[in-house]
Amino acid sequence: MKNKTAITLFGGTGDLTYRKLLPALYNLTVLGKLADDFKIVVIGRRAYTQSEYIDIARTWVKEYARTKFDDEQFDAYAERIIYFKMDMTNEDDYEMLQAFYAEQDIQNHVYYFAVAPSFFITITNGLKKYCSENNAKVIIEKPFGEDLEKAGILNDELAKFFNQDEIYHIDHYLGKEMIQNILSLRFENIIFKGIWNKDFIENVQITAAETVGVGTRASYYDKSGALKDMVQNHLLQVLSLVAMEEPKEEGSRSIHESQYNLLSALKPIEDVHESLVMAQYEGYLQEQNIPADSKTETYAALKLFVDNERWEGVPFFIRTGKKLEKRETQVVVQFKSVGTSPGNVLIIKIQPEEGVYFQFNAKKPGTEQELQPISLDFCQSCILENIVNTPEAYERLLDACFREDRALFSQWNQIVESWTFVNKLIAKYEEQGSPLYTYEQGSKGPKEADNLVDWVK
Amino acid sequence: MKNKTAITLFGGTGDLTYRKLLPALYNLTVLGKLADDFKIVVIGRRAYTQSEYIDIARTWVKEYARTKFDDEQFDAYAERIIYFKMDMTNEDDYEMLQAFYAEQDIQNHVYYFAVAPSFFITITNGLKKYCSENNAKVIIEKPFGEDLEKAGILNDELAKFFNQDEIYHIDHYLGKEMIQNILSLRFENIIFKGIWNKDFIENVQITAAETVGVGTRASYYDKSGALKDMVQNHLLQVLSLVAMEEPKEEGSRSIHESQYNLLSALKPIEDVHESLVMAQYEGYLQEQNIPADSKTETYAALKLFVDNERWEGVPFFIRTGKKLEKRETQVVVQFKSVGTSPGNVLIIKIQPEEGVYFQFNAKKPGTEQELQPISLDFCQSCILENIVNTPEAYERLLDACFREDRALFSQWNQIVESWTFVNKLIAKYEEQGSPLYTYEQGSKGPKEADNLVDWVK
Repeated sequence: MKNKTAITLFGGTGDLTYRKLLPALYNLTVLGKLADDFKIVVIGRRAYTQSEYIDIARTWVKEYARTKFDDEQFDAYAERIIYFKMDMTNEDDYEMLQAFYAEQDIQNHVYYFAVAPSFFITITNGLKKYCSENNAKVIIEKPFGEDLEKAGILNDELAKFFNQDEIYHIDHYLGKEMIQNILSLRFENIIFKGIWNKDFIENVQITAAETVGVGTRASYYDKSGALKDMVQNHLLQVLSLVAMEEPKEEGSRSIHESQYNLLSALKPIEDVHESLVMAQYEGYLQEQNIPADSKTETYAALKLFVDNERWEGVPFFIRTGKKLEKRETQVVVQFKSVGTSPGNVLIIKIQPEEGVYFQFNAKKPGTEQELQPISLDFCQSCILENIVNTPEAYERLLDACFREDRALFSQWNQIVESWTFVNKLIAKYEEQGSPLYTYEQGSKGPKEADNLVDWVK
Repeated sequence: MKNKTAITLFGGTGDLTYRKLLPALYNLTVLGKLADDFKIVVIGRRAYTQSEYIDIARTWVKEYARTKFDDEQFDAYAERIIYFKMDMTNEDDYEMLQAFYAEQDIQNHVYYFAVAPSFFITITNGLKKYCSENNAKVIIEKPFGEDLEKAGILNDELAKFFNQDEIYHIDHYLGKEMIQNILSLRFENIIFKGIWNKDFIENVQITAAETVGVGTRASYYDKSGALKDMVQNHLLQVLSLVAMEEPKEEGSRSIHESQYNLLSALKPIEDVHESLVMAQYEGYLQEQNIPADSKTETYAALKLFVDNERWEGVPFFIRTGKKLEKRETQVVVQFKSVGTSPGNVLIIKIQPEEGVYFQFNAKKPGTEQELQPISLDFCQSCILENIVNTPEAYERLLDACFREDRALFSQWNQIVESWTFVNKLIAKYEEQGSPLYTYEQGSKGPKEADNLVDWVK
């Protein structure tokens, strides 16, 4: 009998499992991407019977899976799922888990740590004590550690059970359609290849705006803040794809090398007064589970430079915040202007709309000389067919992990570089006593951010 | 009393006057672009009374003017028009014309030769004999001469009455919105400026396809053919704008210099079998007024090179023909491809649709690697407001001539260069005995043209 493969979901009764992982695994089942005997082991502390859990799963899959819900398909999917009750903080329970794996003849493992970071080491220790190290991968959510030092400790702990190339740092931004598209746009089009440098580009603006507040994540978020929650992982990853040199070869290794080189070329920010705007939305202190004297930033905007030949003198701007006017993630490439004409603009729209927007100058109809900006807009997500067919980030990332395609996952050396950058920045911020501004809920953010650059949209 | 200005239309009962000039002058009146005492002297041989001619003019203006017809506006416009009966081939009639100008106190003149080229010299001689050379401009339709030699003779004859800078060679293509836009696109956008050369561009394809046949112009057309009727003037002018170096300064003089330099850098075509496809549509010989043994081409496609650093090795393709599948004039810039990806494409659409189309590669949604071409399409003429507000070519060109803005007119030295190129080409064609192909009416043209290049659309 062939050894079976299973994905084990720690945090099997949590939000991430319900909203993202179960629907994504259902989609992969429908699309025939999983082996017939592929199992989904769901770990939870609650005393659900198998059929109770399947009923819960059905509800979530119905609501969140992108493929059409079908009873027969779901029944086949449900066959994969095994609810396994255990306390993940109790080491002895892992002996029971190992016995279960043996009984099921499961020998190839993907562990998904869909739990708070504080449990990562506990789980690893449990696995280490009782389970086999062979053929074990782990998928870990961001943020990886709370700072550079803690990330290092965490990595060392994981290394006791997993090899480096068995650790999949998931950053769901990297699973998004248009993030993946950045590489195709940059390297498969001669016109973009030719102009992607300091001679043509005035600046680059990366924005991730949210309308939501801290919601139910208050106690986690207040310890983290915008820089650690968004910039250190998602946005520096996006930056690395936007700005890196062309990978020398095909394949994930070469992409990772280019990303790493870019991240290690980031110039540490020296003067936070000039380059960083931190702010908190009005009312944050009244949110549930937020300390009344919290100094956590819910908004951060920064200006940084890349120390290499391609980008000499070109500022990159990153901004992200909660409770803003609209939800929008995009990369704006602002090109230099010619004479008095406005500069060309290329926008890669990441979410909620996916597409490419391009603005250039043409003669205003009916006039002799006057110019007007012309917009060319390709909205990928507006095409119904594509919406239906586009995998969700988690579906794509799980599939990639099963296929051992590491291109869409952050690497440990990249994480080290981004933590280094962000830690230095936070240290400077505290050292130089830069203020924490406030901004109105539903606004564009603190007006002080407009001093950094003329933001495009 | 201030000296009045008048435009005198030779050929005042012809098609061009009715369809283009009277409507254009009406528009200029409505827009307040003409002085109150600006007169329109319409020359014709027929014995129309003033009010008969105004009635005719009203009908044409109603049908062809782009601005809304308004009785009051038309009455004001009609006040400008004076129908003047004379025989333009009879020199003595010009004495009468001069007496009329004197009586009307008209001393600033724009003469419009809206007649067959064979009358140009006759009219010039008549004006020379009786009328004042001061403040006289002339607008002349293409083709200017039937070949280089005859164009030279004609230019010499005109020079007896008009200075070179008083001669306005009209090429209505140059009045088209998107032709004018070529310069704005090329020189006001850093991204196009940076990639407009042999390193990025694979080839350029200029197409002017017509659906009509020879119609009522048979006797003229059969002596001319596609090369002389379209390529020598319109299409080489378009080519010069697409390919020329950036003008050193603002203003028409510098644009003309760049155009001239480009046209004089055209490499003469040596081997017509490789570089030229001439064809005649089936049924051409049965058209009225076409000789049964006519060898005139109604279609021409050619490949040429520009002998300068920017365009070394980049082929330019020109094709034009009658009775083709669709009416469409456009410039296609085919960029080089990266690896196996299709090359980027920029299309400047000139007529009937006006706009810009841009095609590049993006990742196919839902796939990991596969590419798909993405099209960004800006249809300027699709925006109703613009259709209404965009001046017609003749309106723009008349207005430019009145303002002595020569940018939109071909210069004599450009005409010399294009005739030189076309004459050499025709000589080679006859010398090398290349065949005249045929093509079906309503088709894409002769299949032999597909051997020149992979035409984009």
